[in-house]
Amino acid sequence: MNSEKSLHLHEKLRGKIEVTSRAKIRTKRQLGTLYTPGVAEPCKVIHKNPNAVYKYTRKWNSVAVVTDGSAVLGLGNIGSRAGLPVMEGKCMLFKQFADIDAFPICLETQDTEEIIKTVKNIAPGFGAINLEDISAPRCFDIERRLAEELDIPVFHDDQHGTAVVLLAGLINALKVAGKRIEGVKIVISGAGAAGIAIADLLLKYGAKHMTLFDSKGAVFDGRVGLDPEKARLAKMTNKNHFEGPLPEGIAGADVFIGVSVPGVLTTDMVKSMAGKPIIFAMANPKPEISPEDAKEGGAYIYASGRSDYPNQINNVLAFPGIIRGLLDSRARHLTDEMKIAAAEALARIIKNPSPKKIIPDVFNKKVVSSVAKVIK
Amino acid sequence: MNSEKSLHLHEKLRGKIEVTSRAKIRTKRQLGTLYTPGVAEPCKVIHKNPNAVYKYTRKWNSVAVVTDGSAVLGLGNIGSRAGLPVMEGKCMLFKQFADIDAFPICLETQDTEEIIKTVKNIAPGFGAINLEDISAPRCFDIERRLAEELDIPVFHDDQHGTAVVLLAGLINALKVAGKRIEGVKIVISGAGAAGIAIADLLLKYGAKHMTLFDSKGAVFDGRVGLDPEKARLAKMTNKNHFEGPLPEGIAGADVFIGVSVPGVLTTDMVKSMAGKPIIFAMANPKPEISPEDAKEGGAYIYASGRSDYPNQINNVLAFPGIIRGLLDSRARHLTDEMKIAAAEALARIIKNPSPKKIIPDVFNKKVVSSVAKVIK
Repeated sequence: MNSEKSLHLHEKLRGKIEVTSRAKIRTKRQLGTLYTPGVAEPCKVIHKNPNAVYKYTRKWNSVAVVTDGSAVLGLGNIGSRAGLPVMEGKCMLFKQFADIDAFPICLETQDTEEIIKTVKNIAPGFGAINLEDISAPRCFDIERRLAEELDIPVFHDDQHGTAVVLLAGLINALKVAGKRIEGVKIVISGAGAAGIAIADLLLKYGAKHMTLFDSKGAVFDGRVGLDPEKARLAKMTNKNHFEGPLPEGIAGADVFIGVSVPGVLTTDMVKSMAGKPIIFAMANPKPEISPEDAKEGGAYIYASGRSDYPNQINNVLAFPGIIRGLLDSRARHLTDEMKIAAAEALARIIKNPSPKKIIPDVFNKKVVSSVAKVIK
Repeated sequence: MNSEKSLHLHEKLRGKIEVTSRAKIRTKRQLGTLYTPGVAEPCKVIHKNPNAVYKYTRKWNSVAVVTDGSAVLGLGNIGSRAGLPVMEGKCMLFKQFADIDAFPICLETQDTEEIIKTVKNIAPGFGAINLEDISAPRCFDIERRLAEELDIPVFHDDQHGTAVVLLAGLINALKVAGKRIEGVKIVISGAGAAGIAIADLLLKYGAKHMTLFDSKGAVFDGRVGLDPEKARLAKMTNKNHFEGPLPEGIAGADVFIGVSVPGVLTTDMVKSMAGKPIIFAMANPKPEISPEDAKEGGAYIYASGRSDYPNQINNVLAFPGIIRGLLDSRARHLTDEMKIAAAEALARIIKNPSPKKIIPDVFNKKVVSSVAKVIK
C-alpha cells in the first residue's frame, strides 16, 4: 500500500528536482547581456581572478550529491542508477531546508581511484561535495583523499551526518538520565561508515568506555582480518579487550547505539544493561529492536530512525545546516570541532529534554540555522 | 558600459540557474514517501529493471553541459571555472526554450582520455550529454568516443548546433539567390570544431565545390602537418587542389562561411566573388567583415552572429530543439539525417525568405517544436 503510493508519486513527478532559470530572457538585449556576447565579461574577470567564480556564478551555493550506488539505504549494492531516487530526494531536501542547489551525480564506477579522480575532475563548478551511500571501508579513503586534494569541503553524510545527529541525541539522553559521557559504557553495533564515524566523534567528545561490534562480534585489537579503520578503532576502544559476541558484551552497558541490522538487540539484552538504558536503534527501515521490545526490557530512552515513534534520529537534522554553514563560511574542511558544535546546537534546541524528547523534529524551523551558524 | 551592465547583472544574480524541488515536503508522511523509507520502492524497481530510471527519476529530461574550458567563446583556453558563466547561460536557455533540466559540469582536466572517462563515469544520471567549448581537434575524438561508448546521445553544440543553423540559413539564402547547393562554390574560413562540422554537413547535403581555409591558407590534400580531421576533409573538398591563401581562393565563390576571426574578409574580396555573394560572417562577437563593408563589396545576403543586424545565426535556434527531440525520442545518436531535417525545419519556418530574412528570430515560438519533432 505505502510502497504503491511511493511508486505512484515518483512516477507522477518523473523526478523530484529540476534545474530552473534565475532570469527570464525576454529580449535580444537581455540575451546579449546574460549570454553571448555579454557573458564574456564575467568569464574574463574569473580568468584573471579565479575566486570571482564565487561572485558571478552559482558555485557558492552548489553541492554535488555523489554516489556509486554501493550502499543505498538498507538495499546494499544496487548500483548508482537505482540509487538516483535517493539522491534526488536528498537534493530536494537540501533545497527545501537550506536553499542549497544540490545536483545528483550517479557514478558508473565503484573503483576507489576512479571515484576520486572523477569527483576531482567535476569539482570546479561546485562549492562542496556530499558523498552518499558509498560502502565502507572504501568511503573512508575516498573522503579522506578528496578532503586532502580538493579546495572545497567534502562531507560523507552516512558518516558525519549520522554521527552529529546521534551525538545531539546522546547529549540530551545523558542529561535526562543524569549520566556523563566520560562515565558511561557504550556499545556500538555496526562498524560500517556510520559506526566508525560515531565512534570517532564520541571519542573526541570524551567517551572513555566504548566497544564496537560487527557481524563477527567485538572489534578488538589484534583480531585477524580487521580492515584498517576497524583496526585503528580497536586500539582506541574496547579497553577490556573483550572478544565475545554482542549479547555478552552488552551486559552492564549504559548506551546501545545500533547502526546495523534489524533484530540484533533483544528484550533480554536490554534487561542485562545498566540502570536507565539508553537505546539508539537506527537500522533503517526496521530498527535493531522495536520500541515495544525495548520498553519491555526496561529501556529508559528509545530513539530510532522511524518517523512514527518519538526521538527520530534523522540525518536531515544535520546535512542541510552543515552544508549551509560550510558554503556560507567557505570553510575548506569540516572539522571534529564543527561536528561537535553542530551536535550541541541541535541538542540545545530542546530546552527541557525528556525521555520522549531528546532531539528536535525535522520540521523545527530552528534546526538548519542553529547548525549552520556554528559551522565556521 | 554594456560590459559593466553584464558584470553587475551576473553579480546580482549570483548564478543564472538553480536546482529546485518538484515536491514540497510538509509532513513526516510525505517525507517518508519521497525520502526514506518510501524511496526504497523506486530504487528496487530500477535495480530490477534499469530502464525504469526514465520513469521514476529526472534522467529523462536531464542534460550535462560539459566543458573543459579550452575554447570558451572567442576567449580561448581560459579554463573551466572561467567558462562557468557560459555554461550556466546555456543551461538557462535550455530551460527557458525547451524545458530541459541542464546542469553545468566544469572539468578540472583537459586531457582527452580523462575527459572521456569522467563523462562516462557521471553519465548514469543524465539523459544526454552536451559538450561545450572544447577545443579542436580534441573535441572530435571526445565526441566520437563518447557517442560510441555511452548509451545516451552526445551532442557537441559548437560543431553540430552551428552547422545546423548555418545550413538552415544557407538553404533559404540559396533559395533567395536562385542557386543550388550542388552548383555553388563555397569557401569556409576556419577549420576548427564549427568549420569541420559545417563542411561535413554541407557535403552530406550535396555541396560539391568547397574549400576550407585555416590560418595557414587553403586546406589541401597532402599539406604538411594537417591534423586528422583536416586531412580527412582535404580529401573530400578542394577538388582543384588550391594551395593559396583565402584572398585568392575566394575569387568566384558564391558563398563565404566564416567561423574564424574578425577582419579576414575585406570589401575587395567580396567584390571578387561570383554574382549575388552570400556572406555568413559568424566570428563572435566581431564578425569576419562588418555588414557595412560587406554591403560595399556587393554582398547580396549578409548573416552574422550579431543580434543587432538581420539574419542572426545563433545556436539557440538549434540546441534546445535538438536536445528536446533526442530526449523525447530516446534516440541514442544524433545522425546527419536528423541534423539536415532540423536545418530544413528551421528554414521552413520562414515562409517567404528574403535577403534580410533567411532565418527565424530566436524568440520565434515555432523554433523549438519544429526542430524537436524531426529529431527521431
